[in-house]
Amino acid sequence: MNYKFLIQYDGSRYKGWQKQGNTSQTIQAKLENVLAGLAGCPVELHGSGRTDAGVHAAGQVANAHFQTDKTPQQIRDYVNRYLPQDIAVLEVTAVDGRFHSRLHAKEKTYCYRIWQNPVRDVFSRKYTCMEAGGLDTAAMCDAAALLTGEHDFTSFCGRRSFKKSKVRIVSNIRIEQAQNELLLWFTGNGFLPYMVRILAGTLVEVGQGKRTAGSMVSVLEAKDREAAGKTMPACGLTLVSVTYG
Amino acid sequence: MNYKFLIQYDGSRYKGWQKQGNTSQTIQAKLENVLAGLAGCPVELHGSGRTDAGVHAAGQVANAHFQTDKTPQQIRDYVNRYLPQDIAVLEVTAVDGRFHSRLHAKEKTYCYRIWQNPVRDVFSRKYTCMEAGGLDTAAMCDAAALLTGEHDFTSFCGRRSFKKSKVRIVSNIRIEQAQNELLLWFTGNGFLPYMVRILAGTLVEVGQGKRTAGSMVSVLEAKDREAAGKTMPACGLTLVSVTYG
Repeated sequence: MNYKFLIQYDGSRYKGWQKQGNTSQTIQAKLENVLAGLAGCPVELHGSGRTDAGVHAAGQVANAHFQTDKTPQQIRDYVNRYLPQDIAVLEVTAVDGRFHSRLHAKEKTYCYRIWQNPVRDVFSRKYTCMEAGGLDTAAMCDAAALLTGEHDFTSFCGRRSFKKSKVRIVSNIRIEQAQNELLLWFTGNGFLPYMVRILAGTLVEVGQGKRTAGSMVSVLEAKDREAAGKTMPACGLTLVSVTYG
Repeated sequence: MNYKFLIQYDGSRYKGWQKQGNTSQTIQAKLENVLAGLAGCPVELHGSGRTDAGVHAAGQVANAHFQTDKTPQQIRDYVNRYLPQDIAVLEVTAVDGRFHSRLHAKEKTYCYRIWQNPVRDVFSRKYTCMEAGGLDTAAMCDAAALLTGEHDFTSFCGRRSFKKSKVRIVSNIRIEQAQNELLLWFTGNGFLPYMVRILAGTLVEVGQGKRTAGSMVSVLEAKDREAAGKTMPACGLTLVSVTYG
């Protein structure tokens, strides 16, 4: 049977989603380990995509094929009983055998949280990034509009060795002023390595007046990582949701 | 000069507010240590009241007398630079020399958070208490009404050795259904040791049908800790605010 998992995690303690040879401190490894205990044999879990070390998820999606007598809800409760407290499975659904969480993902939404008060908030300190100083949100919105759409995002790709097409469709960038936070929402059909954090960093530099909104056109055209802004810290980033057709 | 501090902390890692001989792992000790560095001599910080090990604060108040050339905002920024990430000073104000945060406190408000979904929330897991099963909130509201007012709260006092008057005025208990959480708000002129957590535990037992709302009258009259309900875990409790006349 093929099962779809909706997963939440606080990424602070982990080296990212993806299983790595030399550590069990990844989300995928923790989940596969518990699922192997349930299924009585190794289980391979396919995530909708990697999240980097320190990045959080409110709605990561993954799927795995295995046999069990348990109902989906019993699987959920079993897995949550054995997972560490900073990972939780919100939902388990039995799905069509052909469903693949990465290959069939239509869009993903990420949120980057920027704390704007000079005093940190102790309760959200692990999920938001401190950035002192006021940001010009109107300029950031103008820049966001120029980055939205289908573009070659080479300038926003954080890994030099990435050889595949760097064309992506970013369908929406929304900038929301919450109480003491600025929230940057990104929705698209796919994101390159570090792309969301580089988009956020570039928008912050526009907000700080270090770049103009209009310069986004030439940043995209440069197709050069050096042309874009800094990579924001991982802790402020959360994978919010993944949608399927 | 007398300075008033508005303080926020995540109590998870601490043995409570109050300084203790054998550990520096208390909020008061961490703050006094940083203030001593600023003032160049030992500083005694008076809190509005103790919070127990593991209890959080969004708005604890304390005051201390010391001399410095710094402005209140400079004191705040200095202290936040040297405090651990899970303690923050939100505000520093120069106040009248006679102001005392405990003696002049008029009312305190606490919030007890109960997570009601069968799946935990990884982002608020340290600030809310998991309590499976639906709770009859109408019965809890009826019970809360009977507990509100001026009463001898001996049945809700968690420390046998407490010898002073156990009469307190609880001016308001509010039960709020948030999305996946039940929030219990308590406001009063003072609370006995563990009193808020025992009030919360007793209300939860009413919500579970283990006690009737009407039985609150006899619980109060018993003046016996055994008559009231369980002490809820510390992690769900937050000191929200302290008001002054």
